[in-house]
Amino acid sequence: MCRWLAYSGSPLLLEEALYGGANSLIDQSLHSRLGAEPTNGDGFGVGWYGERPTPGVYHSIEPAWNDRNLRELAGHISSPLFFTHIRAAIGSAVQQTNCHPFRHDRWLFMHNGYINEFGTIKRDLVLAVDPSLYPEIQGQADTEVLFFLALTFGLEDDPAAAVEQAIGFVEEVGSRHGVPNPFQGTIATTDGESIWAFRYSSERNSRSLFYTTDVPTLRKLYPEREDLKGFSDNARLIVSEPLGDVAGVWNEVPESSWGVVGPGGEEIRPFRPKTPTTSVPVTT
Amino acid sequence: MCRWLAYSGSPLLLEEALYGGANSLIDQSLHSRLGAEPTNGDGFGVGWYGERPTPGVYHSIEPAWNDRNLRELAGHISSPLFFTHIRAAIGSAVQQTNCHPFRHDRWLFMHNGYINEFGTIKRDLVLAVDPSLYPEIQGQADTEVLFFLALTFGLEDDPAAAVEQAIGFVEEVGSRHGVPNPFQGTIATTDGESIWAFRYSSERNSRSLFYTTDVPTLRKLYPEREDLKGFSDNARLIVSEPLGDVAGVWNEVPESSWGVVGPGGEEIRPFRPKTPTTSVPVTT
Amino acid sequence: MCRWLAYSGSPLLLEEALYGGANSLIDQSLHSRLGAEPTNGDGFGVGWYGERPTPGVYHSIEPAWNDRNLRELAGHISSPLFFTHIRAAIGSAVQQTNCHPFRHDRWLFMHNGYINEFGTIKRDLVLAVDPSLYPEIQGQADTEVLFFLALTFGLEDDPAAAVEQAIGFVEEVGSRHGVPNPFQGTIATTDGESIWAFRYSSERNSRSLFYTTDVPTLRKLYPEREDLKGFSDNARLIVSEPLGDVAGVWNEVPESSWGVVGPGGEEIRPFRPKTPTTSVPVTT
Amino acid sequence: MCRWLAYSGSPLLLEEALYGGANSLIDQSLHSRLGAEPTNGDGFGVGWYGERPTPGVYHSIEPAWNDRNLRELAGHISSPLFFTHIRAAIGSAVQQTNCHPFRHDRWLFMHNGYINEFGTIKRDLVLAVDPSLYPEIQGQADTEVLFFLALTFGLEDDPAAAVEQAIGFVEEVGSRHGVPNPFQGTIATTDGESIWAFRYSSERNSRSLFYTTDVPTLRKLYPEREDLKGFSDNARLIVSEPLGDVAGVWNEVPESSWGVVGPGGEEIRPFRPKTPTTSVPVTT
Repeated sequence: MCRWLAYSGSPLLLEEALYGGANSLIDQSLHSRLGAEPTNGDGFGVGWYGERPTPGVYHSIEPAWNDRNLRELAGHISSPLFFTHIRAAIGSAVQQTNCHPFRHDRWLFMHNGYINEFGTIKRDLVLAVDPSLYPEIQGQADTEVLFFLALTFGLEDDPAAAVEQAIGFVEEVGSRHGVPNPFQGTIATTDGESIWAFRYSSERNSRSLFYTTDVPTLRKLYPEREDLKGFSDNARLIVSEPLGDVAGVWNEVPESSWGVVGPGGEEIRPFRPKTPTTSVPVTT
Repeated sequence: MCRWLAYSGSPLLLEEALYGGANSLIDQSLHSRLGAEPTNGDGFGVGWYGERPTPGVYHSIEPAWNDRNLRELAGHISSPLFFTHIRAAIGSAVQQTNCHPFRHDRWLFMHNGYINEFGTIKRDLVLAVDPSLYPEIQGQADTEVLFFLALTFGLEDDPAAAVEQAIGFVEEVGSRHGVPNPFQGTIATTDGESIWAFRYSSERNSRSLFYTTDVPTLRKLYPEREDLKGFSDNARLIVSEPLGDVAGVWNEVPESSWGVVGPGGEEIRPFRPKTPTTSVPVTT
Repeated sequence: MCRWLAYSGSPLLLEEALYGGANSLIDQSLHSRLGAEPTNGDGFGVGWYGERPTPGVYHSIEPAWNDRNLRELAGHISSPLFFTHIRAAIGSAVQQTNCHPFRHDRWLFMHNGYINEFGTIKRDLVLAVDPSLYPEIQGQADTEVLFFLALTFGLEDDPAAAVEQAIGFVEEVGSRHGVPNPFQGTIATTDGESIWAFRYSSERNSRSLFYTTDVPTLRKLYPEREDLKGFSDNARLIVSEPLGDVAGVWNEVPESSWGVVGPGGEEIRPFRPKTPTTSVPVTT
Repeated sequence: MCRWLAYSGSPLLLEEALYGGANSLIDQSLHSRLGAEPTNGDGFGVGWYGERPTPGVYHSIEPAWNDRNLRELAGHISSPLFFTHIRAAIGSAVQQTNCHPFRHDRWLFMHNGYINEFGTIKRDLVLAVDPSLYPEIQGQADTEVLFFLALTFGLEDDPAAAVEQAIGFVEEVGSRHGVPNPFQGTIATTDGESIWAFRYSSERNSRSLFYTTDVPTLRKLYPEREDLKGFSDNARLIVSEPLGDVAGVWNEVPESSWGVVGPGGEEIRPFRPKTPTTSVPVTT
């Protein structure tokens, strides 16, 4: 399993989100409280928006807790929107091309969870990726294939519908091969402006997902806290596991839901896997 | 481009083949004389037979010239048959899963050269890999796909015919997509007993390939040389580039040829790409 | 903290010692039961005797649990005497030159524990290393300095006396600088024939250390166990933490003791830090 | 040997300096024209000033030409002052703690060249480092020791005088041990505002060093060039080897000289090694 964190708001030094809090993401790399595995030491990744429309991505195969370059970068890069992900590999190799977040043009994508019995259905899934996108697949992680399925199904136009179709397709192929509970997990994706987050599993018992209370409310709750003054009103953290225990800060995303934060507003809606509307190649 | 070396004979400490000679393989990693690129610093690999029928494999993304573990292993592992390969990446990531030699059960496979415009035809090639083998593909190197095509076409039963079909198929798919000169290179494969080596390119202007003169002849040529006494009569090195300049030692494999050395004897034959006899899935 | 394992006996495939048992060393890298820290993911090392008098050494900065090369090497190297060590770094960088076991000529040395406030007393300790040995120091780990102190004090002639002096010297320098409890830990060292193991801490509350019951006794205890037949009578494992729970197998080394196993017999004796007999340079 | 580049001026995306030009620094990592060795593939480093007074530092042991993270960072970090360095190791391990630039508080330091027979005189040099600075030494590179000597001799107060004393001391210790030509190379150091660069060797035959003509002059020379309009008047590159062949751009720093660029103006002066004025500990 893995742990992840997504931030949007006023520009924030990465280290405040990565190393801050009583249960910081970096602490979670050594001993996560809510994860399926306590240790998330099989590499990590950071994706951030800054100088250009296309985000920068930093991937490393070292455990996050002892990567000196991560500490340097986190202490010197600030960004209004970034993703970070720490990995606990299940099966696929520990290599940079398997590290989240994955990128396509302006888009980032990351995931905590798995496609069940991926080896069994991988070929059918990969075959459904748009042939023009196929050569961009760099690694062998289940999440990367899921990302390219979502791109195939229109992620750049309607992210929520595309992820619903990608997961619907995974469930359909899995069911055809007799794979129980084909999908598990939480997902975040962004175009650099809005963040879409998903919580779903075929068994309806999904990995945890939390988001922070809006900053104006937090300022009323904790008028004495100086750290809250530095955040913009629209700042949000979305995380697989709370970074601390402060009352009123962390809200759970309901089972089988997706939400969006961004310039177009915020909302949470039910998540329903769908059959892809695009025709998908079938192996003969 | 890359450089490689294959050895069979009486058990030899790896370092004698890797670090020995006026133009040792490790020297070639820094400044190859005959390679398409002088520097082969994008990782390397060693595969050797020893304790078990399945060979051991060591892959590293560090340049061979400064990898301390390689020096240690080469100084402490001796083997009657081993492959080593130094890589100059063209396109695909520098990661262990892209390092040669590739392995499947008892078989090893390595290559110096490329599949031209691999991104264009990769999907069609991968689709032709036997679905039961497909989940074993670990990386994204063109050579790994070629290896799995050869396995699909019967490498374990008739290596020469299988490689002829694999390359024939690459040329056929390449030609269908308008790719000029689809295949270039030299290949070595082994089951732990015999070594098959191939030299071929669609343009009939192939990367260099050499093998050593048989040891009894060398002993007659150089009766005073002590080092030759340690080798068994059947010892052979096959290399992409000679390790030294000693007259009478290195023989070039002719253009468009393949050869085999092993318990069943030795021979060199013409190489002719063939249309696969197995039916191959076609994308719809 | 760290975890380590030393083996001597009939040649054994490394993987049997590394990956075998209900609580194998590799399992301990993810979740040690007795260690000061549950995760030992900051690199590892293997040292083994084989082809030559000087042992081979393999050091990696990846967590042992996901290092594919380690699995390959462990599955293809067998040795009559080897050390393995998994590291949990405290302070010094995760780099190969800080990985145990350390080597000098035929000798290996590894350690679970620490020199307290090493930064404070490092300069005085390093200054006491024999100037002819000084250039061999490769990294910055406290254990490497301890090893070179022990070499300075005669490790190659009388290992137990040299380690007693090295730790005595650490305590003396520590006390001069007001460092509480300067030394903590267990140590193993070998010349390729005998293994010396040490358990000691300035506070007399030392890291755990165990050794296996002699094989003839184990065979009587478990006449039905096939695995015991493969071991020679003199086979021994010495470990910082038992690899399993089988009754009668694991014996604790008493607090403040050292022991030796080897061709000269076996014994356990009290450990008493000593003032070095060699004169030591003093900073002016 | 190594290659390096220092930039100060209006904020510049790192990739423009690293990947730009007919003979870019990244090209030089594969085939340097003027270096003592054509390949500089033993790791690299970047130090840059940005969000904070203390610079960020990124060190990697992969060859610069294939490090994907470097490309990402260089494409997303812009800075008004940065150092980059590509390494060709001679002796010391390829590890992050041996990568330049080295850092102490706000200062960066990098070097192309070597201390001759470093193993012979290392102990005496290290012993002369101020004991309060000693614990900060992280690696084993000759340059790091030189940096700490310069800090000991007052780098933060008078950089030129401190480097003259550091090299004077190296020559003195070298001469005491019979080491011929103890120092060779070019050095750059900065406090984040000015850059000091040095060219000197004991044999008076020093590694090359170049700086760019001032921007207003270049604009007059090449009124049509758009790229020059983006640079501020005070922008300068200092490099061990020109990045291209454009006439009038590159000026050689004379043998045995040092120069400074910064808010306090620019000048070039003769370099003369000096005996340290600080008293230095002597081994007994």
